[in-house]
Amino acid sequence: MEIANILNAAPNVKIAGVLTHAGHSYRCRTADEMADIADQERNTVVDAANSLRAAGMECPIVSVGSTPTALYARHLTGVTEARPGVYMFGDLFQAGIGSCTMDDIALTVLATVIAHQENENQLLIDAGGLALSKDRSTSVLEDDCAFGLVCDVKTGNVIDGLKVATVHQEHGQISSSSIINFSKYPIGTQFRIMTNHSCITASGYDRYNVIDGTHPHPAAGINVWKRCNGW
Amino acid sequence: MEIANILNAAPNVKIAGVLTHAGHSYRCRTADEMADIADQERNTVVDAANSLRAAGMECPIVSVGSTPTALYARHLTGVTEARPGVYMFGDLFQAGIGSCTMDDIALTVLATVIAHQENENQLLIDAGGLALSKDRSTSVLEDDCAFGLVCDVKTGNVIDGLKVATVHQEHGQISSSSIINFSKYPIGTQFRIMTNHSCITASGYDRYNVIDGTHPHPAAGINVWKRCNGW
Repeated sequence: MEIANILNAAPNVKIAGVLTHAGHSYRCRTADEMADIADQERNTVVDAANSLRAAGMECPIVSVGSTPTALYARHLTGVTEARPGVYMFGDLFQAGIGSCTMDDIALTVLATVIAHQENENQLLIDAGGLALSKDRSTSVLEDDCAFGLVCDVKTGNVIDGLKVATVHQEHGQISSSSIINFSKYPIGTQFRIMTNHSCITASGYDRYNVIDGTHPHPAAGINVWKRCNGW
Repeated sequence: MEIANILNAAPNVKIAGVLTHAGHSYRCRTADEMADIADQERNTVVDAANSLRAAGMECPIVSVGSTPTALYARHLTGVTEARPGVYMFGDLFQAGIGSCTMDDIALTVLATVIAHQENENQLLIDAGGLALSKDRSTSVLEDDCAFGLVCDVKTGNVIDGLKVATVHQEHGQISSSSIINFSKYPIGTQFRIMTNHSCITASGYDRYNVIDGTHPHPAAGINVWKRCNGW
């Protein structure tokens, strides 16, 4: 209320509303835990709005954030806006904590096999830390996805056992829990890589190539969406 | 030679030269080890060039890479080009393996204290994974710098004990090995953050703000250099 009173008394300031972001929902591992944090998030921000209104101030915007709470909120009474970020695409971390399914993940990086290292049981791809990001958020989950999972370029299905184990600046190394059948993935093979955190992966690009079920190959993208980068 | 012969016989191809990059020099921890890798890098690429020439082909460019080998090569006889990347700025990883000193590090991120969390002994800054990158390359070195070290904004000197311990998307948490004197760093205090890997940090920006000893504060930058991003 101290801050609100200062703002309200200032001649050139208009209070637009109140805002929070329950980032700690990322520590949840069950839908119930996420719903509890969503309750807390909503109660906190709605209470704040009501306190302002009780003091005679307007508070048109009551805004919450966080993808897990947006998905699992029991209700959003009193909230006027939700600002979940990764909600739009999902990613391996969100799938790992149950806030989306693997099928919901809608952002992948197109990569090409550039070398075989048979003695190391590794496929090299032209996507490394710059292309995928160095986010390792799944390292704290039961299913650690290393730097990303590897999908068939046409179906988008995850190829069992393959993971981007290591990233260097411009290339990555795919390893497998079993012996890789190298003849199945000749040099030039394209994969789609799902990453730990879609937000930071996407921040390395200036556009999205949009595909759909009837045009599943990225080269046949049905649209190009530009990104706003910087902050 | 098989590839060279194919290229040489192709009607529209001209062999410009040979190129390598001794990225494995990053695993070195002493100047002698780096010099040995530099010998290997030079010998390999000069031998390749000589093989082409012995077969009657031209090979004007003989190109090596890697910052540690460029700095510690005993000699570069026969080499016409070096392509070290982080050489330009240095970073905490390069300082950690001895390929530059802390004083050589010429790239920092300007950040501002946005909150105090006294009960957690943490300063919050407005620089997180997007601003600093999530590179953790110093995690394998004796001096693990977490996500970055914290420098005085004017002198550029490292402030003892402070580290960027955690990064979220848009903010970071600075912790200390001792109790932080919070009154020394009021909200609004600016720091310059040195990061693990200057290349990937810089890739998040579209320009450099250039400063020097007489204009040490980033807001008084003496020049702006644009970057080429994407790959």
